[in-house]
Amino acid sequence: MDLKQIAKETAKTLQSYLTYQALRTVLAQLGETNPPLAHWLQNFSAGKIQDGEAYIEELFLEKSDLALRIMTVREHIAAEVIEFLPEMVRTGIQQANMEQRRQHLERITQLNLSSPSPKTEKQIISDPNLDNLSN
Amino acid sequence: MDLKQIAKETAKTLQSYLTYQALRTVLAQLGETNPPLAHWLQNFSAGKIQDGEAYIEELFLEKSDLALRIMTVREHIAAEVIEFLPEMVRTGIQQANMEQRRQHLERITQLNLSSPSPKTEKQIISDPNLDNLSN
Repeated sequence: MDLKQIAKETAKTLQSYLTYQALRTVLAQLGETNPPLAHWLQNFSAGKIQDGEAYIEELFLEKSDLALRIMTVREHIAAEVIEFLPEMVRTGIQQANMEQRRQHLERITQLNLSSPSPKTEKQIISDPNLDNLSN
Repeated sequence: MDLKQIAKETAKTLQSYLTYQALRTVLAQLGETNPPLAHWLQNFSAGKIQDGEAYIEELFLEKSDLALRIMTVREHIAAEVIEFLPEMVRTGIQQANMEQRRQHLERITQLNLSSPSPKTEKQIISDPNLDNLSN
């Protein structure tokens, strides 16, 4: 596992994703102030935002003021939200892992309870602890 | 701009992306130890990894040991790389913005130099500072 490479690729993906969020923000602003330009930007951006840098570069050639605006917004968004991400993601993954394991446990327990062998059935009836599992 | 909402969406995206990186890691490991299973996992995962949690849930129903393994790996990756991301992304965006602005400046300067008005042309010839810009 090349953690350094993973960190680099993740940072690049995050950078592109924040560029996409900046585009969405600018689109919402233009929707209020200049709907035709919002419409143009929406059409221009469709399917182009996977690689944030290539997208900005292309937009510069068409409408440099919009490219500059999205760049300013993504820098602002990064400055505001990025410090909260590590804790959010760490907690998010831990909770998601716990929830997935819980659901899995529930599924295999229900599976065993719904088609029990005679022996297992007897055990369920006689063991009050196992009754709780069927809830 | 709803920064709280952006932070939430970004954290979710990052969580899915780290799940994808965990899948890639497990695929590489299985490629060494169990190529048929690697092949199966590759096929199973194609086009499913956009939503990390839905993907893990589906994988649990097919091969729970692989789901558990990917979950363990993503938690490990997150623990190792996530603290470096804020600085990497902040710097990445600042540098990319600077580079995009520099390229834009270069383009509009070259544009002016390649089709100069008579007056501009005279100015270029007489001004040694502007000569540097054409390089």
